[in-house]
Amino acid sequence: MIKNIAVLTSGTDNPGMNAAIRAVTRTALFEKAKVWGVQDGFYGLISDKITLLDSIAVSDKIQRGGTFLGTSFCPEFETMQGRKKAFENIKKHSIDGMVVIGGDGTMKGAKLFSDEYDFPIVGIPATIENDIWGTDYTVGCDTAANTIVQALNKLRDTASSHRRVIVVEVAGRRYGWLPLAAGIAGGAEYVLIPEVKTDLKKLVENLKKRHAAAKTYSLIVVADGCSDISTIGKTIAEETKLDTRISVLDLILHGGAPTVNDRVRASQLGEKAALALLSGLYNIVFGYNKNDIVTINLNDAVNNKKTVDEEYIRIAQILAQ
Amino acid sequence: MIKNIAVLTSGTDNPGMNAAIRAVTRTALFEKAKVWGVQDGFYGLISDKITLLDSIAVSDKIQRGGTFLGTSFCPEFETMQGRKKAFENIKKHSIDGMVVIGGDGTMKGAKLFSDEYDFPIVGIPATIENDIWGTDYTVGCDTAANTIVQALNKLRDTASSHRRVIVVEVAGRRYGWLPLAAGIAGGAEYVLIPEVKTDLKKLVENLKKRHAAAKTYSLIVVADGCSDISTIGKTIAEETKLDTRISVLDLILHGGAPTVNDRVRASQLGEKAALALLSGLYNIVFGYNKNDIVTINLNDAVNNKKTVDEEYIRIAQILAQ
Amino acid sequence: MIKNIAVLTSGTDNPGMNAAIRAVTRTALFEKAKVWGVQDGFYGLISDKITLLDSIAVSDKIQRGGTFLGTSFCPEFETMQGRKKAFENIKKHSIDGMVVIGGDGTMKGAKLFSDEYDFPIVGIPATIENDIWGTDYTVGCDTAANTIVQALNKLRDTASSHRRVIVVEVAGRRYGWLPLAAGIAGGAEYVLIPEVKTDLKKLVENLKKRHAAAKTYSLIVVADGCSDISTIGKTIAEETKLDTRISVLDLILHGGAPTVNDRVRASQLGEKAALALLSGLYNIVFGYNKNDIVTINLNDAVNNKKTVDEEYIRIAQILAQ
Amino acid sequence: MIKNIAVLTSGTDNPGMNAAIRAVTRTALFEKAKVWGVQDGFYGLISDKITLLDSIAVSDKIQRGGTFLGTSFCPEFETMQGRKKAFENIKKHSIDGMVVIGGDGTMKGAKLFSDEYDFPIVGIPATIENDIWGTDYTVGCDTAANTIVQALNKLRDTASSHRRVIVVEVAGRRYGWLPLAAGIAGGAEYVLIPEVKTDLKKLVENLKKRHAAAKTYSLIVVADGCSDISTIGKTIAEETKLDTRISVLDLILHGGAPTVNDRVRASQLGEKAALALLSGLYNIVFGYNKNDIVTINLNDAVNNKKTVDEEYIRIAQILAQ
Repeated sequence: MIKNIAVLTSGTDNPGMNAAIRAVTRTALFEKAKVWGVQDGFYGLISDKITLLDSIAVSDKIQRGGTFLGTSFCPEFETMQGRKKAFENIKKHSIDGMVVIGGDGTMKGAKLFSDEYDFPIVGIPATIENDIWGTDYTVGCDTAANTIVQALNKLRDTASSHRRVIVVEVAGRRYGWLPLAAGIAGGAEYVLIPEVKTDLKKLVENLKKRHAAAKTYSLIVVADGCSDISTIGKTIAEETKLDTRISVLDLILHGGAPTVNDRVRASQLGEKAALALLSGLYNIVFGYNKNDIVTINLNDAVNNKKTVDEEYIRIAQILAQ
Repeated sequence: MIKNIAVLTSGTDNPGMNAAIRAVTRTALFEKAKVWGVQDGFYGLISDKITLLDSIAVSDKIQRGGTFLGTSFCPEFETMQGRKKAFENIKKHSIDGMVVIGGDGTMKGAKLFSDEYDFPIVGIPATIENDIWGTDYTVGCDTAANTIVQALNKLRDTASSHRRVIVVEVAGRRYGWLPLAAGIAGGAEYVLIPEVKTDLKKLVENLKKRHAAAKTYSLIVVADGCSDISTIGKTIAEETKLDTRISVLDLILHGGAPTVNDRVRASQLGEKAALALLSGLYNIVFGYNKNDIVTINLNDAVNNKKTVDEEYIRIAQILAQ
Repeated sequence: MIKNIAVLTSGTDNPGMNAAIRAVTRTALFEKAKVWGVQDGFYGLISDKITLLDSIAVSDKIQRGGTFLGTSFCPEFETMQGRKKAFENIKKHSIDGMVVIGGDGTMKGAKLFSDEYDFPIVGIPATIENDIWGTDYTVGCDTAANTIVQALNKLRDTASSHRRVIVVEVAGRRYGWLPLAAGIAGGAEYVLIPEVKTDLKKLVENLKKRHAAAKTYSLIVVADGCSDISTIGKTIAEETKLDTRISVLDLILHGGAPTVNDRVRASQLGEKAALALLSGLYNIVFGYNKNDIVTINLNDAVNNKKTVDEEYIRIAQILAQ
Repeated sequence: MIKNIAVLTSGTDNPGMNAAIRAVTRTALFEKAKVWGVQDGFYGLISDKITLLDSIAVSDKIQRGGTFLGTSFCPEFETMQGRKKAFENIKKHSIDGMVVIGGDGTMKGAKLFSDEYDFPIVGIPATIENDIWGTDYTVGCDTAANTIVQALNKLRDTASSHRRVIVVEVAGRRYGWLPLAAGIAGGAEYVLIPEVKTDLKKLVENLKKRHAAAKTYSLIVVADGCSDISTIGKTIAEETKLDTRISVLDLILHGGAPTVNDRVRASQLGEKAALALLSGLYNIVFGYNKNDIVTINLNDAVNNKKTVDEEYIRIAQILAQ
């Protein structure tokens, strides 16, 4: 019976990770289990940066961005030797299960380790890009979308004052949810995502028509998985002769106090993950399917590619008319 | 065939109403229908404050709180004579269907009118309290929850600096979702809602224990449907001898730029409402069930009482440990 | 020579206090002095809650609201016996000077103690009401003004949606700066402050005229030093027949991440206070006069009453036309 | 006697410009003068986009970023022919004075025009860089500094979670006030400005020492007037072997709802500018010297270079220890 669990965050940091750690910890403590906090992701497993967590340790954390445990990308964990060291430290502390919070790469690492050492792991998907297969939601995506919309509000002031076209790049290399959600909410005129081939020529024609008519400015949201933003900006400027600028929103999307949605859902996923692990249910990832909490096989989560909601694409186009 | 629709907002204003109006308008225009904007809710129907909306009219509105059409509580619409005047004005403009955006009272008024004159109406539920039966979500509730959490962040600064107990009142007369969601997300120590009888004596005992131990401050979120906040505050102060303060968050919860969630969902509901009405589907309310867009019979929406999610109550208790 | 100083915060908490503590601490450490942090204001002196601060102790604090040292109102310090205990603890740690951060009441307590024991004290004025004589600025007032304006933005959404009059109460018992600054910045139609006798009859007449003309809503900011807000609200509602609501902004004005202005100025005052004390200059309060950092005699700061800037009153009236 | 004035915004847009336009307009109306709003800066003068403003026209604008009149960079105004057209349109509307709101380039254009046609102009300095000679303050700089600090808060989450060095570029080509103020307030470890030669070698040494000791992350704010941010980032990464990232904050610094400070000061400058012009005082720029409103000769404002406050440089260094 599992009574001694570890929790770690790995990969990029995402708002709501602290809420998930807190929920895992307090739920496990409530169930009379021990909880170990691993610092700096898989690297902390390898270098034995592992300490016991009590209720106070996760106090005053839910409202903070980032992850108080620290996180990292850990190439050493991709080697057999690295994982061996990690397992030795896990044994040393008699840890018999682990909750792993992170994105796609993290889940792959967790899968490898779990297979190799037959070690119980439960995953909580956390990435602002919302690109984990099998779940509608990943921790951090709501906060990042709101951060983009707040930036779009500022950019709209500037675009409308100068009658500009502003092209904004945001995360979305594999999956267009974040640019789409932020673009719909921010009232962007166009959203370019990797799932839909960008027809730059048509975009230019549309922009010309709009600006010849009443429209005096345009905001274009571009996923970083599309073609290069400088090229897009330059093409639009040259072809339309409109005052065109580009702006890149990068690191700031990973920080900031999480929204209510990210806190509540991270809390729910954390609670479910801890309860599952403690009751012997593992090698799964917890997620949401249509607002229901569901479990996804770790193998499936890692080996499938998510497809974007066609409804979002359609509504983004109609409402921007 | 319906080709001439009206849209109005009624009752209290809620963040996201503008996104819903915009989506109704642009979707209907895309479908080659005419759209009339009614000012100040049902009152505008009665006094013929009705004007045509084009695409520009709803431009630069999605990011704004409140409702640019205006809203009101309209006692005159509760009289047969009032509704008769309303119907005459509707006929005058050859309007043959209407989207009504508002809360419980608004839906009741819409139902009455629709029955009386056999007039096609589609409802979009909008209320920060999220208290409409048949839907998990109502327009404005996510923004209001985030506004509360931002206030709780400020209050936590003050509570922890002074080692205080702060009791915060928020909307939730009939349904405890808003205080629960905000309380979980804000890391509140206790959440008092109308669905669970408040045991003030036990609360006082718990507070004493906590503050005798490590805990140096407590935030308590109270729905305005519970017993009087002054009484709660006074009882806690007298019984625990702790420095106890109360604060009421009222009108500010109705304003403010809507969150991404409220904008995207209000847009989706607005689009669906317009499409339904134009294709001859009416006397329904659009809502979300587990993240799927669903329709609720207007009659059912009006005559049933929502019950709170037990999971929320449980998680609020466990995570506050 | 003073080489061993204490720092404390007392009275209400105010945004920027942490920036001041940090600046005092790091400046003193830079000058090779020892710095003691006193918890919970004068109460911590009496109960010997006094610990050494190093550079790390004030790390990651500048962006936080409240005061990490804690604060309190301490009646015991108003007694000779209380102050005697405080002095004994100060001697115990060989502390030979103290920086005291707080408002009017705090400065009075500091003056008393300094006189009684001939003990070197330097004050930093901190209060959201900006009501310390001899300085144009007190720590926290800029953040509080911005918090009010953000609330006014939300209230404007609601006021304009409903064509309401909203009366908002904010701090300003002795001095009208905060309501005036927030009212000017928030575009309030009227600002009522203790320095100007409220002519409710004239206000009602003006409101009637405005709302009869184009104006569809009004925001009125009231200092809590004026007559009772419920009475004001009731009178306006009855006399104008306009939809009138009241809202009280209280505890939330004391919390929240400080603005740039509060952080920079609190830092500058903290640095000057530490340098002065270490170089043997004391029984003064540091403040700003027309943007220059100045010193005010502790006696004068405590015994004079500030008067409001007539320019502010005039501009508030002209710009609201 | 001047009774017929124009107002325009020119160059980049800055938060608070709307507050200045509103104050100019309402003050002039209060003094029974006519006010003409010129669209899109000097370009609107040339193309006769000039319309009368009444009190309602500037209503509901004070809280908005950008400039509702529009702005532009206008090369045509740099030609004699362009200015001739502008003057003809001014005569056409019998305009006998003008308030010009903008930065350095705008003031230069205004000076040229004023000299050439002996036309009365009063300037209001507006630029987020705060780089106009003769005034401590320019409209927009407080909002921009707060926007940077909010971004630094998010970046700190990410930097501390990953133990990173993050280098952030902000505006400050000619003058280091903005990076310094934001850096001090944001608790940045280093601030690089054009006024102080960057010693990258020393910076690298310091970073190594810090990170070898307790410090786990560093934020470095760089003015865009310093050497290239990519080079800085690359050098730090290579020399320190620390995880180093760069991020550029550009267009978002120009938008957003203005702070209280920017609104109040823009209002005061707008009022003074209108009053001066109407009473026959012109060819001056209004600014602040140590919190007093002062006038600067337009010639001097244009031909002098501002120097940075040494106190700021010192405090930035000491407090980052």
